[in-house]
Amino acid sequence: MAGQAERVVPLTEPLAEDGEKGPSKSALKKAAKEKEKAEKAAKRQAAEEAQKKESESNDISKNDYGELPMDGAWPSAFPSKDEVPRVLLTDLEEYFGDASKMDVEGGPHIVFRASVENARSQSAKLAFLVFSRGGASIQAVVAASDDLSRQMVKFCSSVPAESYVLVHGLVKKPMEPVKSTTIQNLEVHVKKLFVEGKAEAQLPMQVADAERPIPIEGEEETVDGRPIVQLNTRLNNRVIDLRAKHNQAIFAIKDGVVALFEEFLRSKKFRGIQTPRLLGSASEGGANVFKVEYFATKAFLAQSPQLYKQMLVAARFERVFEVGPVFRAENSNTARHLTEFTGLDMEMEFEEDYHEVVSLLEELMLFIFAGLKDRYKRETDLVRSIYHVDDFKLPAKGAVPRLPFSEGIKMLRDAGEEINDFDDLSTPQEKRLGALVLEKYGSDFYVLDEFPLAIRPFYTMPTAATQAKYNPEKPNEGYSNSYDFFMRGQEIMSGAQRIHNAAFLEKRMKEHDTPVDPQGEGLKDYVNAFKAGAPKHAGGGIGLERIVMLWLGLPNVRLASLFPRDPNRLSP
Amino acid sequence: MAGQAERVVPLTEPLAEDGEKGPSKSALKKAAKEKEKAEKAAKRQAAEEAQKKESESNDISKNDYGELPMDGAWPSAFPSKDEVPRVLLTDLEEYFGDASKMDVEGGPHIVFRASVENARSQSAKLAFLVFSRGGASIQAVVAASDDLSRQMVKFCSSVPAESYVLVHGLVKKPMEPVKSTTIQNLEVHVKKLFVEGKAEAQLPMQVADAERPIPIEGEEETVDGRPIVQLNTRLNNRVIDLRAKHNQAIFAIKDGVVALFEEFLRSKKFRGIQTPRLLGSASEGGANVFKVEYFATKAFLAQSPQLYKQMLVAARFERVFEVGPVFRAENSNTARHLTEFTGLDMEMEFEEDYHEVVSLLEELMLFIFAGLKDRYKRETDLVRSIYHVDDFKLPAKGAVPRLPFSEGIKMLRDAGEEINDFDDLSTPQEKRLGALVLEKYGSDFYVLDEFPLAIRPFYTMPTAATQAKYNPEKPNEGYSNSYDFFMRGQEIMSGAQRIHNAAFLEKRMKEHDTPVDPQGEGLKDYVNAFKAGAPKHAGGGIGLERIVMLWLGLPNVRLASLFPRDPNRLSP
Repeated sequence: MAGQAERVVPLTEPLAEDGEKGPSKSALKKAAKEKEKAEKAAKRQAAEEAQKKESESNDISKNDYGELPMDGAWPSAFPSKDEVPRVLLTDLEEYFGDASKMDVEGGPHIVFRASVENARSQSAKLAFLVFSRGGASIQAVVAASDDLSRQMVKFCSSVPAESYVLVHGLVKKPMEPVKSTTIQNLEVHVKKLFVEGKAEAQLPMQVADAERPIPIEGEEETVDGRPIVQLNTRLNNRVIDLRAKHNQAIFAIKDGVVALFEEFLRSKKFRGIQTPRLLGSASEGGANVFKVEYFATKAFLAQSPQLYKQMLVAARFERVFEVGPVFRAENSNTARHLTEFTGLDMEMEFEEDYHEVVSLLEELMLFIFAGLKDRYKRETDLVRSIYHVDDFKLPAKGAVPRLPFSEGIKMLRDAGEEINDFDDLSTPQEKRLGALVLEKYGSDFYVLDEFPLAIRPFYTMPTAATQAKYNPEKPNEGYSNSYDFFMRGQEIMSGAQRIHNAAFLEKRMKEHDTPVDPQGEGLKDYVNAFKAGAPKHAGGGIGLERIVMLWLGLPNVRLASLFPRDPNRLSP
Repeated sequence: MAGQAERVVPLTEPLAEDGEKGPSKSALKKAAKEKEKAEKAAKRQAAEEAQKKESESNDISKNDYGELPMDGAWPSAFPSKDEVPRVLLTDLEEYFGDASKMDVEGGPHIVFRASVENARSQSAKLAFLVFSRGGASIQAVVAASDDLSRQMVKFCSSVPAESYVLVHGLVKKPMEPVKSTTIQNLEVHVKKLFVEGKAEAQLPMQVADAERPIPIEGEEETVDGRPIVQLNTRLNNRVIDLRAKHNQAIFAIKDGVVALFEEFLRSKKFRGIQTPRLLGSASEGGANVFKVEYFATKAFLAQSPQLYKQMLVAARFERVFEVGPVFRAENSNTARHLTEFTGLDMEMEFEEDYHEVVSLLEELMLFIFAGLKDRYKRETDLVRSIYHVDDFKLPAKGAVPRLPFSEGIKMLRDAGEEINDFDDLSTPQEKRLGALVLEKYGSDFYVLDEFPLAIRPFYTMPTAATQAKYNPEKPNEGYSNSYDFFMRGQEIMSGAQRIHNAAFLEKRMKEHDTPVDPQGEGLKDYVNAFKAGAPKHAGGGIGLERIVMLWLGLPNVRLASLFPRDPNRLSP
């Protein structure tokens, strides 16, 4: 049988077990070819290794460069700290004092860690690199000599940009100041160099691309003939993108805002709190809330800590603040919206009048602006220069313009806008009003006070006048003790005096344009908090990314979020 | 037809439209009765009002007490700030200097806001109240006189406990020091009193109940014959519960830990970051992750900022920290588990050895402990006295015991525990080891170093020795550059040197006991971060509620969360 004929098995091969077929003729042929191939490869490898060994034995620098082991363990070739100091690149100029006096022959040796901005080979005997770390950069020279091999020059010139390296070098005064680095009067002559974290040679995007501003719609999309990398590509490669100097500056400033916010409020005896993000019900209104699968039930992600910070004021916390993520399931793909952002929230008792709280919030914002000007001037100037943005104008003598909403409407009407007394402002109207206020008061920062009751949440306190004129037929008519803060004509904060009387709160819940059930799950606990006796209180919630965006004049709020989230983006 | 006979309609009534039935005889009878009733009620009300008016016109104090309007507007009866100073109860003793020298006739008048701890009527002419605010409390006397009516005494004595009031009073030295209040050498003689936020007379729970410790399993569940309110009831009425003095202290301390954490790290040039809570994939392992409905797709809640903080180190942020909520979908109902808690995270580059990071973290924890001892001694002592907890013992001269894992295993074995070299410690074993370390080193705080590789996450760096002895058959054998920190024998922090080489990371992902796909959604971005060149780095994540619980010796971690979340609790 044909089948059996094929079962002739060479005696040199073991019989296949369990009746498996032995190899076919073509398979045998293939195996022989592969064997031959492997032998050739082995020979070639042996030759290469021999050559490498030969080369290494001739390499006077063989212990002075290479790649570190996986754990990045300190190379034994490196001098100890006592022999050669470790100096951060950012401290280098200070360390060497007045560099202009330094001899061309150089200062002492140092050891430092840095990333490689770029490396290029000038000749077989000479390579130039730029090292950077913490915003400081320096030029480096690798020159073949009696002590330094051409092999090492070659290795150094081929370290991929963005790799992390460990360097032992001699600091010298360059023949001419180096223009392309932040340290211009010093350069490093490399003695030893080890790669700690090697970057791939081909990255999906260059840091140099990220250093340029994102293209603005309608503007040129190339600079010097090179296309400008789009925001989406940058966000897809955010780790590389964030290495750009102005991105580092943006997030230094963002952290600065948080630090200043906390510093000011702690100095005013506010207590930091952590309220839950997982809620049993969509307390603040059903729309725009993310649902979570919570064991056998559903939970909802907090849109703000609003109800909880009020409950804590009712729990005798007096003054509270919170910095934390908040979530909005808004399907808006604009330059102003994120689905996750950082809320800077505060809430407090007051003594006589809610304007005490408005004044404190104005003081807070002025403290933040002053702190940014004072501590983050370099970063602010850098980012604004990239995006060609004007200074942020603050009112003379710190008198923040505080206009009643009705006054804002009047200004808009006088400027030709058609708007009714109790209409909410559209985004263009907000910007228009911002421009009018800037013109009149010389301030990019102002407060709009006493908003119409109908356009604020149910827990907002009506003004005394509105309460006095209460009309059960039109329960939402009139104004309220509420306020918005604006920067460059865009809202950064919303706040109000809240209703602290449980019965009145329940009444307003039912009367509100979008009524809510005071007995609804979640809201029951909220209303009960006031049944247990609560002081009058007011507060506000600030969008952190908004402040950063508007302080710097960024064209998109995503630039102020490390890893922004919108309806189409959940990664990286 | 019978039906038609019933349609006889009195002529005085309008005909029902659309064929509706007119009222029946019994309905008419009922209506007449109700009319009579209403007339009677109106008469009664008129009489009451007349009586009230009469009473008011006789009430010499009628403008000096009552309920404030809804917005809590300052009463016109109150003197201005220039006439009578506003003094916080917490500042009162300092304000009056040495109270012992004060005349019984009293010091000047003051105005203050406070809540009512209790109010009782001694007679028709005399009432006693206790006011408190910000932890300070004072006794108040309301005595009828030529200037103060019996009606006002009655009103004051019936203000429900926990109401918020506005008081104008005369401060005097009491005949004898008051024992039940924090201010013992002063008392207030009330001149005017207005209710700002009225509490209901019947609250679901008393603050006095919350002042006592939660019942511990197996212990007495009554004190002085009164049942101790269970934790669950307290958490259901958390706003009232949180008013208890030791609860106020717990959250002052918790905020203190956050402030100290940030203060220390900022002083070491760490930058605060905000990483996303909404993730496109369950990056750190599929289990224990909450799923979110995210528009047309799914998102996952972050279990920690682990991957993001590493990516930011790769993005040249060098040193980062984050304080934020983290989520664990663990169906564990124990005294140690929450589904949402606050992570205190940090990550940093290091120069030579990951023990630099361990040392910095030890220093951080010692800074926090010293800060708590220094700034929160009163609060700490108060809470520990309630829960009968020992002092937290710290090592002499700040030398934190740092034991290799293998040494910990040896100590347990020497003490009779059966445990293998590479076994993870059970909770009882952790507590046992904590007791052994306390006995040997005199410290409630210690570090366990070099954990077995197999029981740590895939991104953990193996020790150099383990890498040198690498056996592809047993790729998870050996130890790792990782560490846990313990307080009172319970883990508060987990950390490690992370793998910063992308190829090695991918290899370890596949070799790990629960292998992960390096190309999996989410992890791809993570691995790519290291392909772009990353420095060696290490860090750790601390559970904030754990620190608070163990510093104070609380019996349940829920007591360290304002509004705790567990598998059965999503409210309030």
